[in-house]
Amino acid sequence: MPNRTVFFISDGTAITAETFGKAILAQFETDCLHIRLPFVDTVEKANKAVRQINHAGIVDGKRPIVFTTLVNMEVLKVITNGCQGMLLDMFGTFVHPLETELQLKSNHRIGRFTDASKSKEYQLRIEAINFSLAHDDGQSHLDLEHSDVILVGVSRSGKTPTSLYLAMQYGLKASNYPLIPEDFERRHLPPALTTHKNKLFGLTIQPERLSEIRNERRPNSHYASLENCRQEVKEAEAMMRRSGIRWLSTTTKSIEEIATTILQEIRPERLAY
Amino acid sequence: MPNRTVFFISDGTAITAETFGKAILAQFETDCLHIRLPFVDTVEKANKAVRQINHAGIVDGKRPIVFTTLVNMEVLKVITNGCQGMLLDMFGTFVHPLETELQLKSNHRIGRFTDASKSKEYQLRIEAINFSLAHDDGQSHLDLEHSDVILVGVSRSGKTPTSLYLAMQYGLKASNYPLIPEDFERRHLPPALTTHKNKLFGLTIQPERLSEIRNERRPNSHYASLENCRQEVKEAEAMMRRSGIRWLSTTTKSIEEIATTILQEIRPERLAY
Repeated sequence: MPNRTVFFISDGTAITAETFGKAILAQFETDCLHIRLPFVDTVEKANKAVRQINHAGIVDGKRPIVFTTLVNMEVLKVITNGCQGMLLDMFGTFVHPLETELQLKSNHRIGRFTDASKSKEYQLRIEAINFSLAHDDGQSHLDLEHSDVILVGVSRSGKTPTSLYLAMQYGLKASNYPLIPEDFERRHLPPALTTHKNKLFGLTIQPERLSEIRNERRPNSHYASLENCRQEVKEAEAMMRRSGIRWLSTTTKSIEEIATTILQEIRPERLAY
Repeated sequence: MPNRTVFFISDGTAITAETFGKAILAQFETDCLHIRLPFVDTVEKANKAVRQINHAGIVDGKRPIVFTTLVNMEVLKVITNGCQGMLLDMFGTFVHPLETELQLKSNHRIGRFTDASKSKEYQLRIEAINFSLAHDDGQSHLDLEHSDVILVGVSRSGKTPTSLYLAMQYGLKASNYPLIPEDFERRHLPPALTTHKNKLFGLTIQPERLSEIRNERRPNSHYASLENCRQEVKEAEAMMRRSGIRWLSTTTKSIEEIATTILQEIRPERLAY
């Protein structure tokens, strides 16, 4: 049972506070109850948050830990003055030294996603998600040349979640294309891909893990059998090697780690830096 | 032209460093070049990073800003000692006071995504992505009862990106279901949905914006015409009101803001806190 409560408070979505706070907490072997308090953008909501935090402290018998990314000073003041938790002001801590370094005052802009919907970068993300969906699993050859990256690999090697992650987080038009037994027989990449070699990136996976994943979908099928998985992976790796395609094994990697590695290798021009 | 370079350094993906660093930088009206240095997990890579940072400082004529979430102390020491940039040690700053508060030593665990692929939480995320893809746009009624949330709304109101975001970030099985002219004529929700009312959440959108979005897809069609968009939105909102479905307008919201609001309203049990 969790023995302490952690709050993530923001005037925006609290996604930044939560992402960062969780990464910090992962450094400790402790089991905490997490409570996200987004959109705390008025004094009234701040007072309510203070009551909730202090109540949790009484119930737990331990003071709560409170990560905030509040930029509204009036709201932050209510929390600072009223909250009996341990306050970790993630913005204040770094914004003040940066004001000195940059010789600029911070603008106290609320929320990195606010008004995002009007920004060019945001539009590109939405466009990329639609593109990646339309080009999932080799569904469409149309516009394949507009892809920033084209993932290839055997069925269930991790192509779809990785493509969607690249689109959602980085606005990359990520297509993906299965390598199937017909390709192995022909001993050539799918013809649609041969003109886009510089955008190709391969995903492979341990046959044992692949067989597990496929068995969840189609139990006891030839498709999921270890023997067939071994054969497909062997053929796919040989084909990627022959074609000079960069690739990695997804077996023990998360989509975030796979995506980061792909970005390092492909270095797409589209990415805003 | 950017006049200063910002680095995000981590022994893992550097996604946390970048997410947080960008949120801080958004507080300033300044244009910086962003460089992500992931997987800096050896002294050798740390030395290379130091050279890159110091070189950028010389080229810019201004010291770089360096956000780190390094947990390997040996690597961090190389950066601390060698780097001529302004070092913002995001982990150290908060981990030390937390060690005192929790009376625990931090475990210096590298990367919140490392070994994620083996965790139950990660498996649920991948499962949720597959589920949401299979239940996009009312494609399948199968297993609809296993949804954590079912989004409804007219075509192009933002259902698909929001569903995928909920699945990818929170491991929620998010289905989505279009409201179409046939439903409006019948004046009833699609029959498949009537037994899942507690999971329904509606998205609506300003007709003017909807018409813009649809015109990109099908220029000058009846589907995209302002008149038709006005009619569909009016009918959809009336239907959601009649059916007692909670809803919000996506017109000026990002998928992060939409998702956060949905989580606040639906409070799915599945969510790990």
